[in-house]
Amino acid sequence: MSRVRVHNFAVSLDGFGTGEGQSAEAHFGHAADRLHRWMFATQWWQAGGSGGVDDVFVQRHGPGIGAEIMGAGKFGHPGWHQDPDWKGAWGPNPPFHTPVFVLTHHTRPSIEMEGGTTFHFIDGSPAEALEAARKAAAGQDVRLGGGATMIREFLKAGLVDHMHVVVVPILLGRGVRLWDGLESLEENYGIEAVSSPSGVTHLTFTRR
Amino acid sequence: MSRVRVHNFAVSLDGFGTGEGQSAEAHFGHAADRLHRWMFATQWWQAGGSGGVDDVFVQRHGPGIGAEIMGAGKFGHPGWHQDPDWKGAWGPNPPFHTPVFVLTHHTRPSIEMEGGTTFHFIDGSPAEALEAARKAAAGQDVRLGGGATMIREFLKAGLVDHMHVVVVPILLGRGVRLWDGLESLEENYGIEAVSSPSGVTHLTFTRR
Repeated sequence: MSRVRVHNFAVSLDGFGTGEGQSAEAHFGHAADRLHRWMFATQWWQAGGSGGVDDVFVQRHGPGIGAEIMGAGKFGHPGWHQDPDWKGAWGPNPPFHTPVFVLTHHTRPSIEMEGGTTFHFIDGSPAEALEAARKAAAGQDVRLGGGATMIREFLKAGLVDHMHVVVVPILLGRGVRLWDGLESLEENYGIEAVSSPSGVTHLTFTRR
Repeated sequence: MSRVRVHNFAVSLDGFGTGEGQSAEAHFGHAADRLHRWMFATQWWQAGGSGGVDDVFVQRHGPGIGAEIMGAGKFGHPGWHQDPDWKGAWGPNPPFHTPVFVLTHHTRPSIEMEGGTTFHFIDGSPAEALEAARKAAAGQDVRLGGGATMIREFLKAGLVDHMHVVVVPILLGRGVRLWDGLESLEENYGIEAVSSPSGVTHLTFTRR
């Protein structure tokens, strides 16, 4: 069965998945790199990095994934759709290596990149995007790439099977919240928490 | 040096320290007892309870404390000040055993209870309440008893030396948030996180 998975989605203690003021220079707004330093310190990110619990979690990002769905705010900073040459911020060989479905009201023709990544643009509901991604994933799992708004919408629609959230011990104070409007989410999931020596806490949500 | 300490303050994953709809029957509103089940399962609460990490943390509540400051919402449900006989919800021998300063716009004469607890009522700033509590604590530490609003105000005023927050894996969706308006709080504290087999995560904030 093809599952819908979220991996490595980082939030601050106060629940923000991105900061305020996103731009071409600041993908996460005033959060800068503070939500992801734990990740940059792993072997997955760089040779010589840590191979501990943070690395174990982060390595789950790729295996078994046949397609990703991402929100428009992950594909580009506000206004990217006005740039006909915008192909995302990941260079010619993006780290997805599968079809990627970008949820946006500003669709454009698909873009084939190096390394197996093709960006498709879809203006539809979470269920419609998932149907397209599942077909492209050919039996493998579908990863939800974020940001916070699209993950929240998929959670509200009951479409998430597995979710890994990383709580980073900082207070951003402003930005986009992950947890809003998800009262009683725990009724549908087994939730585990494990703290890392790096200071972050890994939460896993496994659908009951 | 007399320190200002917070212990066992429980919040949901989405940061609520109490639910919505507080009343005489529901001190934590729709949260009911869900923020505190981890505590009820400890030896501190009941014989035969767990003596593990949750108990180790919860036992820090009492030692070295010479006074408590609590918010009006902890002393009673909304409207308690209209009841001249209201003495809190803890019975004749409350579990504080020290002077307790209730921050409220509705002051009344002090109330001496059994077991060493005396309730004093003070209408003032966090700093003013702390000055009175410190004097009463006679060199011992002052505990901030909550709720979320008063702890947040003391944090904003830079008056908290040590804080223990317990993150419970539930989503309340509504109520009173602890973390609002505390951007960059981490700059003033060393923060540690440790997860418990019970499912909660203990956060400690130690002032740098």
